[in-house]
Amino acid sequence: MSKSEGSLKHRRRSDYPFFLSYRTRWSDNDQYSHINNSVYYHLFDSIVNSYLITNCALEPAKSKRIGLVVSSHCQFYSPLSFPMVLDLGLRVNHLGSSSVTYEVGVFEEGKDTPGAVGGYTHVFVESASRKSAKMDDAVRTGLSKLVVEDRSKL
Amino acid sequence: MSKSEGSLKHRRRSDYPFFLSYRTRWSDNDQYSHINNSVYYHLFDSIVNSYLITNCALEPAKSKRIGLVVSSHCQFYSPLSFPMVLDLGLRVNHLGSSSVTYEVGVFEEGKDTPGAVGGYTHVFVESASRKSAKMDDAVRTGLSKLVVEDRSKL
Amino acid sequence: MSKSEGSLKHRRRSDYPFFLSYRTRWSDNDQYSHINNSVYYHLFDSIVNSYLITNCALEPAKSKRIGLVVSSHCQFYSPLSFPMVLDLGLRVNHLGSSSVTYEVGVFEEGKDTPGAVGGYTHVFVESASRKSAKMDDAVRTGLSKLVVEDRSKL
Amino acid sequence: MSKSEGSLKHRRRSDYPFFLSYRTRWSDNDQYSHINNSVYYHLFDSIVNSYLITNCALEPAKSKRIGLVVSSHCQFYSPLSFPMVLDLGLRVNHLGSSSVTYEVGVFEEGKDTPGAVGGYTHVFVESASRKSAKMDDAVRTGLSKLVVEDRSKL
Repeated sequence: MSKSEGSLKHRRRSDYPFFLSYRTRWSDNDQYSHINNSVYYHLFDSIVNSYLITNCALEPAKSKRIGLVVSSHCQFYSPLSFPMVLDLGLRVNHLGSSSVTYEVGVFEEGKDTPGAVGGYTHVFVESASRKSAKMDDAVRTGLSKLVVEDRSKL
Repeated sequence: MSKSEGSLKHRRRSDYPFFLSYRTRWSDNDQYSHINNSVYYHLFDSIVNSYLITNCALEPAKSKRIGLVVSSHCQFYSPLSFPMVLDLGLRVNHLGSSSVTYEVGVFEEGKDTPGAVGGYTHVFVESASRKSAKMDDAVRTGLSKLVVEDRSKL
Repeated sequence: MSKSEGSLKHRRRSDYPFFLSYRTRWSDNDQYSHINNSVYYHLFDSIVNSYLITNCALEPAKSKRIGLVVSSHCQFYSPLSFPMVLDLGLRVNHLGSSSVTYEVGVFEEGKDTPGAVGGYTHVFVESASRKSAKMDDAVRTGLSKLVVEDRSKL
Repeated sequence: MSKSEGSLKHRRRSDYPFFLSYRTRWSDNDQYSHINNSVYYHLFDSIVNSYLITNCALEPAKSKRIGLVVSSHCQFYSPLSFPMVLDLGLRVNHLGSSSVTYEVGVFEEGKDTPGAVGGYTHVFVESASRKSAKMDDAVRTGLSKLVVEDRSKL
């Protein structure tokens, strides 16, 4: 864990410019009756790709350039569980020409402290060759709206 | 496939007394870029157990009697895909003293014809011994509100 | 449930001509500490598509004709749970020119009675247009090796 | 990402004392026809809990003390895809009295360079109260066999 990650517990809803709500599913809970750690990564993928599709003109099955995950991480602060509805907040902590680092905060409905905070880095590649490539202009423009600059970015 | 299942394609939203909306997730789509058939069963489990918890006082980790799935089925009529929001309709086609047969219709937001219709049968058991048992009164009362009688039930 | 499904509990390993073993995963178990009903459909998809890829020359991302699920069903006879290794048996109950009906038996390692039996029907379509199509010769030849004729087929 | 993570790409099979093989599943692949990043975390959970159950006498539904994930991470080096069989290697990078940090290497069958390396930290808690607790002796003894000391631990 890097030093910078130490501050993520202090995130609040106002730290994220884009939100979507996800209804949890029965199978999100594992035997310990709380949402399994792996499920948070499914949710990260969901809000990130929803944003890329609806706000950045990405078409996963057609676009010539797509984003692949090269590293991911998550910290878990308090248990969440089915059948909660979860509010996910999305921000961009670093935006390059061919890569982007997202951060996602996961909030229980009605709470301002996150149950978990994590994220991942997308590197863009040509979808056919999977060779590194610059992201499309529409993607970069869309993502630039989510950039939040602060000292606690990863 | 039984004869009665032949009519499920003709279901409409008005055939279901209880609805919940589920935002799809990136991993719901498989390589064919549509929601994988298995995912519908996760959604069935989600609306059924949400209803049991919020409307029938079921507590999965504590209740002395729980419902276990003994058979399930689904028919797929038209592809749905991430990042759609799906409206699920729930009804009860048969309510016994120790078992219940649910049916779920899956609708794309804004459409009145289902993309898929399926369901399953819960048999209630003692949670400790897993021996067959009558369902709790609160469960039966809650489920009775979803019973729809018609000729096309399974 | 159709009459023919009534006999599936009596399946034995010898009823299936093709087997693969799957190690269960932590998240296969739900809050009731057994493998969730939806997970069986993921396993059906896995053995069917493994067979299509390795024995029928199907390439999901490239083939011009692919199989889509139009209906599926499963019956659950005895609970299975993580961390078991499960043996899946595959057979074909009906093979047409553009559709195929699979049946899968799920066995705990070392047991000859199934924990669950189910299956689904694939209809083949042009991958681009998703219009109905005959399956490729290599697919039909591969699948014909799994056809088992008996009175208890679905 | 911490500095120490930079070296994980250089892991080889010999860096891990415990291995299990997992057959991939159809739904592990996402729309980009490779194993989705979230699936790796499901696999981490699977090998860790398999080891805890079979080598450390942990019983998830009964043990008084259980391990909960407080942080996790993964780096992805080369794409893996269904229907591959994956070999997972498990090691312990840090073993305390109430917490343990695991690392998992994911290898394609027959390859000695990992497709991905990641891991997570379990903090042990009383299963009823979810308050921090020392791990059971049998757990600590079992995990101590997986401790690998080197300079590149996380």
